[in-house]
Amino acid sequence: MSTGAISRYPVPELADLPEDIRAKMLEVQEKAGFIPNVFLTLAHRPEEFRAFFAYHDALMLRESGLTKAEREMIVVATSSANDCLYCVVAHGAILRIYAKNPYVADQVAVNHREAQISARQKAMLDFALKVATRSAEIVEADFAALRAHGFSDEDIWDIGAITAFFALSNRMAGLIAMRPNDEFYLLGRVPKK
Amino acid sequence: MSTGAISRYPVPELADLPEDIRAKMLEVQEKAGFIPNVFLTLAHRPEEFRAFFAYHDALMLRESGLTKAEREMIVVATSSANDCLYCVVAHGAILRIYAKNPYVADQVAVNHREAQISARQKAMLDFALKVATRSAEIVEADFAALRAHGFSDEDIWDIGAITAFFALSNRMAGLIAMRPNDEFYLLGRVPKK
Amino acid sequence: MSTGAISRYPVPELADLPEDIRAKMLEVQEKAGFIPNVFLTLAHRPEEFRAFFAYHDALMLRESGLTKAEREMIVVATSSANDCLYCVVAHGAILRIYAKNPYVADQVAVNHREAQISARQKAMLDFALKVATRSAEIVEADFAALRAHGFSDEDIWDIGAITAFFALSNRMAGLIAMRPNDEFYLLGRVPKK
Amino acid sequence: MSTGAISRYPVPELADLPEDIRAKMLEVQEKAGFIPNVFLTLAHRPEEFRAFFAYHDALMLRESGLTKAEREMIVVATSSANDCLYCVVAHGAILRIYAKNPYVADQVAVNHREAQISARQKAMLDFALKVATRSAEIVEADFAALRAHGFSDEDIWDIGAITAFFALSNRMAGLIAMRPNDEFYLLGRVPKK
Amino acid sequence: MSTGAISRYPVPELADLPEDIRAKMLEVQEKAGFIPNVFLTLAHRPEEFRAFFAYHDALMLRESGLTKAEREMIVVATSSANDCLYCVVAHGAILRIYAKNPYVADQVAVNHREAQISARQKAMLDFALKVATRSAEIVEADFAALRAHGFSDEDIWDIGAITAFFALSNRMAGLIAMRPNDEFYLLGRVPKK
Amino acid sequence: MSTGAISRYPVPELADLPEDIRAKMLEVQEKAGFIPNVFLTLAHRPEEFRAFFAYHDALMLRESGLTKAEREMIVVATSSANDCLYCVVAHGAILRIYAKNPYVADQVAVNHREAQISARQKAMLDFALKVATRSAEIVEADFAALRAHGFSDEDIWDIGAITAFFALSNRMAGLIAMRPNDEFYLLGRVPKK
Repeated sequence: MSTGAISRYPVPELADLPEDIRAKMLEVQEKAGFIPNVFLTLAHRPEEFRAFFAYHDALMLRESGLTKAEREMIVVATSSANDCLYCVVAHGAILRIYAKNPYVADQVAVNHREAQISARQKAMLDFALKVATRSAEIVEADFAALRAHGFSDEDIWDIGAITAFFALSNRMAGLIAMRPNDEFYLLGRVPKK
Repeated sequence: MSTGAISRYPVPELADLPEDIRAKMLEVQEKAGFIPNVFLTLAHRPEEFRAFFAYHDALMLRESGLTKAEREMIVVATSSANDCLYCVVAHGAILRIYAKNPYVADQVAVNHREAQISARQKAMLDFALKVATRSAEIVEADFAALRAHGFSDEDIWDIGAITAFFALSNRMAGLIAMRPNDEFYLLGRVPKK
Repeated sequence: MSTGAISRYPVPELADLPEDIRAKMLEVQEKAGFIPNVFLTLAHRPEEFRAFFAYHDALMLRESGLTKAEREMIVVATSSANDCLYCVVAHGAILRIYAKNPYVADQVAVNHREAQISARQKAMLDFALKVATRSAEIVEADFAALRAHGFSDEDIWDIGAITAFFALSNRMAGLIAMRPNDEFYLLGRVPKK
Repeated sequence: MSTGAISRYPVPELADLPEDIRAKMLEVQEKAGFIPNVFLTLAHRPEEFRAFFAYHDALMLRESGLTKAEREMIVVATSSANDCLYCVVAHGAILRIYAKNPYVADQVAVNHREAQISARQKAMLDFALKVATRSAEIVEADFAALRAHGFSDEDIWDIGAITAFFALSNRMAGLIAMRPNDEFYLLGRVPKK
Repeated sequence: MSTGAISRYPVPELADLPEDIRAKMLEVQEKAGFIPNVFLTLAHRPEEFRAFFAYHDALMLRESGLTKAEREMIVVATSSANDCLYCVVAHGAILRIYAKNPYVADQVAVNHREAQISARQKAMLDFALKVATRSAEIVEADFAALRAHGFSDEDIWDIGAITAFFALSNRMAGLIAMRPNDEFYLLGRVPKK
Repeated sequence: MSTGAISRYPVPELADLPEDIRAKMLEVQEKAGFIPNVFLTLAHRPEEFRAFFAYHDALMLRESGLTKAEREMIVVATSSANDCLYCVVAHGAILRIYAKNPYVADQVAVNHREAQISARQKAMLDFALKVATRSAEIVEADFAALRAHGFSDEDIWDIGAITAFFALSNRMAGLIAMRPNDEFYLLGRVPKK
């Protein structure tokens, strides 16, 4: 496994991939201008790839009381608690774009308490971080704290489930030493031309 | 949300479920004699349900250098590190059945170092517990330690990916306070009649 | 020190033991049908053995505002926090018998917050776990919380002292790798014939 | 429970105590010039008192490959890890006296790695601190490390058992907020007249 | 203390500052194009301000076996371990500039093990992180590990002392909720025009 | 680097030191009767020495709402949390002298909750320990808790800044294995003749 690789595991050639997976990659490439390494590296196991992205899309694309930027805040804050390089860098980019805010991703990654976000969003991240690090200690009082900020029970499921999904994702990235694409570091930091 | 419930969230009636999900439940009921609560409680969100079980089956049913009992050992040990009641109790039962051993699940749940399992299996659980709790610290030396016990790189992916999947599963169970079915507590402890 | 042993240290023959210790063993064998390994393994040091069981009996057999089942809950919950295989398995069995409940021991061992026990019992275990893991931080407010649930100061001593005694016991078991008797795993799980 | 008290619990009058306990107190008073508060405060429960001191004496007075000063080092180092005010102050005094060294107790309490003690004694304290804080992780390699320093298996039992006993003692002191006698702070710091 | 402020404490006007401090600010403004908030916020206490920057300059501007980029790596890695928003963002910018590398700061902040830096630099950061989080456990073996990578004892002092200084700095930033200037987020990410 | 040394690094001769540093040492020797090792060992780097003591004096000698004894309490409590032998022993002595109390230093070092100090002082140490160990989590509520005890915002800066400075100091002491002078152990324990 060479230094410089984007994964500790073999990365398949696009040509060798099942049709549905190649199509998904070309679609994201069309949209983003490049193929994020999470697609390339997880394609090593097509069946797991399909379940991974089905789960991801079920959570991140659904109608929700959370905005897309808020969902990405959850990803960035909890991935940072797990020291996951890929997820902090890649989803930091997506967060900057959705929030149209070049500062918020670094703030949420390092210390959400000092981020320039709403009190409601800080409560959301407090809950997410508890699910990420001590999920067995979630009690009714944690739900009550979120309801006081106007979150519905379905919103709370979203917060918890996104955190849970990225608990998986962070561990896969750590396992294979998934490297973020260079493109992510700058995305959303400068006005789009 | 009443005490005594199997979830903090509403549990759908079988009759109200999409056909594919109901079919999956009836299939497991046919085989196990009851419907494990993970099916009933996660069916609250059909799309996430489908991704969850597709992922689960991709990892737990595939051909692998790990036996089915070894895969369940990983589930039990890492779920215990996360204090996940549902997963320890339910997968403890499955482990006892696959291993045909009424003691191993409790041993692995409480302290795998003192379990009556092989040195190879202890090394497997050491790695799984590191992925579960400190995945960002996984380095080449951790891979080398497993290879020395005869694990292939694909086996190591299995160990890490199963751990990652149950990191998700444990957090979902904590979020909704998923209750294990009473049946699990005794399964695999007494010889089948 | 062989694998498969019940202790890292030599285990004395019954015939070689001082009369009082042999008598105590025969008494427990008469009652339980087997000699729990804690008796056999600690008999390696007769004087410590006598003090250990004198202390144990002073706490576990005395009149108390705590039921015998509640005392065993404390043992199981705090021993699980210490990852003590012997104590979780052996006292889990005793708890199931005293509580006449085949589920409670596993629930309390894995996550007492989700156990089907009373709010009063959960407060008792919260306190016990604080004594087990951060006893220097016990303050008056912790006593007040228990008094609000009807515990007397003598009850609180019982909770703390049982926790303290098993802090010792768990460390002795870890030191010598004390193995639980196979009998304990099933005890209290099936109706007595 | 007043501030300034030596315990959160009632402290019995000498006159009201059972004869054997009063005799033990007078004996220690004769020898030390004062009655250490651990005697007075634990006498609230005579039966537990007897077991406590029987256990203490079995470990601390027996013939051993460890000197009395080394045994007190174990007490001071592990009690400090548990932030136990009574045990650090009282046994710090005893350690200074046995070691005829006015510095060693503070060194061992704050950071045994920088204490002016032998490499053998540092290894002893490394093991003791592991038993104190992570006893379930004790493995054969920990025994091997001590044997390499010349410790016998019986010596290792002593190290582990003293640590285990003070795990109990520290938690009792925390539970009742046991206050050290003022005399202990200075004992062993200045040459005896 | 208003939201949006750069400190929880009053920030002095430039006109009201002692001459030497105002001069230092104008100098940095001349060079950087803006006054970093650490200057403005710490000027609340002129005497501490002077000592702070004298210490900073003694460490960061001296001749050393460490490059300036390596010194900033230490700042970023240890400040991230302390979740210090100001230091991670501001020194991340300086690191990108010194290293002429737009990726390294985020890599070192999130997980230095996966950063594209040399093995020597990873060893340097391992040591710095140990000083940051467990300095009492530094032993000779830690020095030996660095010497094996070619670090001199003076280099090791630099690593440790920079870490120590930013342990102070991170805590001051947390105390006053020091906000990073917006300029830092983008610095060093795009080629200078 | 010899055992028995007061530092892992070379300690300069007084005669070889810059005049201002030698003068400072002679001044403290005149006052204390000996030169504390922190002066001798940090003189290895004169420029850092000057900044260190300028910072120290700015915090410890200034007019403040905190008494000098209270400032030393902060040093002792937080240095003990960092297991710093030099600072606990040396500043324990200074605390005993300022407080004219031979007991308070050991109490604050081991467990400030059980120290015989005021509730206001316990709140001060709670805050200091949070700055020492989790400064990124300091929020407005922490300030409010101190204001309720009558601390001004400037007093709170003092508490936080002293803690921050000794975070640096503790790490330097750990880095170089700074040994406390023998004189400190007894200072303030017996009435001055």
